[in-house]
Amino acid sequence: MLIKLIPVADLCNAEELRGTTAIVFDVLRATSTIVTALASGFRRVIPVAEVNDAAKLARDNGFVLAGERGGKKIQGFEHGNSPLEFSSGPQTESNTLVLTTSNGTRAICKAFGADAVFIGSILNARAVALAALNEKRDIYLVCAGTAGNFSLEDALGAGFVLREIIQAMNSKPEMDDLAMASYTMASYYQNEPFLGLAAGRHGKVLLNLGCEEDLHWCAKLNRYDIAPQFNGSYIR
Amino acid sequence: MLIKLIPVADLCNAEELRGTTAIVFDVLRATSTIVTALASGFRRVIPVAEVNDAAKLARDNGFVLAGERGGKKIQGFEHGNSPLEFSSGPQTESNTLVLTTSNGTRAICKAFGADAVFIGSILNARAVALAALNEKRDIYLVCAGTAGNFSLEDALGAGFVLREIIQAMNSKPEMDDLAMASYTMASYYQNEPFLGLAAGRHGKVLLNLGCEEDLHWCAKLNRYDIAPQFNGSYIR
Repeated sequence: MLIKLIPVADLCNAEELRGTTAIVFDVLRATSTIVTALASGFRRVIPVAEVNDAAKLARDNGFVLAGERGGKKIQGFEHGNSPLEFSSGPQTESNTLVLTTSNGTRAICKAFGADAVFIGSILNARAVALAALNEKRDIYLVCAGTAGNFSLEDALGAGFVLREIIQAMNSKPEMDDLAMASYTMASYYQNEPFLGLAAGRHGKVLLNLGCEEDLHWCAKLNRYDIAPQFNGSYIR
Repeated sequence: MLIKLIPVADLCNAEELRGTTAIVFDVLRATSTIVTALASGFRRVIPVAEVNDAAKLARDNGFVLAGERGGKKIQGFEHGNSPLEFSSGPQTESNTLVLTTSNGTRAICKAFGADAVFIGSILNARAVALAALNEKRDIYLVCAGTAGNFSLEDALGAGFVLREIIQAMNSKPEMDDLAMASYTMASYYQNEPFLGLAAGRHGKVLLNLGCEEDLHWCAKLNRYDIAPQFNGSYIR
């Protein structure tokens, strides 16, 4: 089994992903938010790339609408992209969440060339590691990145999942150097994931936007025991 | 001042490099070999991309000829690419070394769009950090990579230089997330750089080729106090 890290989802090639298991990471904050929402009572999350499509889908079906651009809640949306907004589960009749974010939701859609697509974060590192191992295919750690660039926190999240994979296997699988780099980073920050999240550029942007609690939330290793999967239409 | 890491020299854009200071890393082994040769008595190293060009240049001028492809000495060449071959300085009349390697020499030539191009390695981390800082421009850490892919050991070398930069500045400069990742890796391996070199794919290839001593040599932090510079024709 090979484990490979894709540093930016835009580099994803559907052809290359075929026959693999993908785990998608947008640790700050889309995939952490999705994991939190599903662990807290939402039944489905529908990732949507474009703002207008998301708004129409939610309005037509009475779904909960959430999203951000540039880290900020989209004007007219009920919710932004903070996991804290969803940690008490749905507050209305609908338990379907429609989410559109700058990088994460597009990354999830991009990864759909893989035979199985899981949603990864530090919050569910062990659960998603075990679920991916159970698929018995090569594993691609697909990092969303930020605006087409490598993003520290996504590689860090991938590294935490990789640590769980290695622990479960009781040995190191074959991996490429980017995966090995992510493993090294997670090992460096193993006792203080928050500091790792705060070290990257996007983490600093969020801190400047007053989202320190979000970073603390996203840094909680193995808080949830779920491995959400994307079926091409929605995540559950 | 901004510090940015280019993960693979092939991604280098001469336009982007203009006005910056570049430090090139091919830690296993081209830049470590160049630093060793110059610190040990060679006066100049001429990096050449193609095997035939290197052979002709050396033959026509009586220079020392060295190079590898796939980690192995090129047939008909006097020397391979092991730093240990040059640690006693020139053994013939010529003190000019012509070197062609799979990734490193091309990376050095690629980086020449920058206003100053230094040769970086773990061996001369502090010296090259201080020389680059002294140029007072943005610093690009240009990693050679291996066959167009990210290579752990180059980012590790860049991270060790970055640690020296930060120590000299007594503060963290603005840096991109790849630079920050390299800093994290070097911090993780600060007491055992050899283990970092051995963790990457190319390190493992060299170990399988029997080059363990080379890895130990390349892992010696701040062994040399020189900051070789490439002027477009040669390095000294």
